[in-house]
Amino acid sequence: MTLFERIDAGEIPADIVFKNDDVLAFRDIHPQAPVHILVVPRRVIPRLGEAGEADTTLLGKLLLAAKDIAKSEGLADSGYRLVINHGPHAGESVPHLHLHILGGRPMDWPPG
Amino acid sequence: MTLFERIDAGEIPADIVFKNDDVLAFRDIHPQAPVHILVVPRRVIPRLGEAGEADTTLLGKLLLAAKDIAKSEGLADSGYRLVINHGPHAGESVPHLHLHILGGRPMDWPPG
Repeated sequence: MTLFERIDAGEIPADIVFKNDDVLAFRDIHPQAPVHILVVPRRVIPRLGEAGEADTTLLGKLLLAAKDIAKSEGLADSGYRLVINHGPHAGESVPHLHLHILGGRPMDWPPG
Repeated sequence: MTLFERIDAGEIPADIVFKNDDVLAFRDIHPQAPVHILVVPRRVIPRLGEAGEADTTLLGKLLLAAKDIAKSEGLADSGYRLVINHGPHAGESVPHLHLHILGGRPMDWPPG
């Protein structure tokens, strides 16, 4: 099981902010902004590079869930950044696709 | 028309790297990494906050196109970061949803 599957199963505690049939979201334990949430597909896709056409709907739902969660967190007007890290250059950490939502402060450019 | 629709129509020159029925991709004119490409849905969604369930498939295709383009650019193994900016705190610039692909160098954390 991936770390995020273990969070999903309740084996590892996490501050879960959203869960439905497709998506799980919880706060990052090393937050980089006042709001920093990870959104993950409950069905494991290790990383975007291993996703295929059969995952199209799930990937779309991931983005829509991130949008809804950002709104729930009060970020819809002030704004937020969504980030997906893929591979070593981006610092990908857990082999279970996840999307970062960061908000609650102005974000710099470039994005890292 | 949005700036990106004008690029799509050929009214404004751009270094286009990919185009199909759903998605257009071209190089950012202010690159923040050796590879910096914008991926946009050809049907205008102003920003993620204005997307709805009817856009699920298009949003999934946007992520899959980004993955395929990153691979074509030789970034699949070294890695890359995908970024969507939403609203003022994130520096959203053009009111036409776009996803940044950045790669070709190690990316820092936090992502801006």
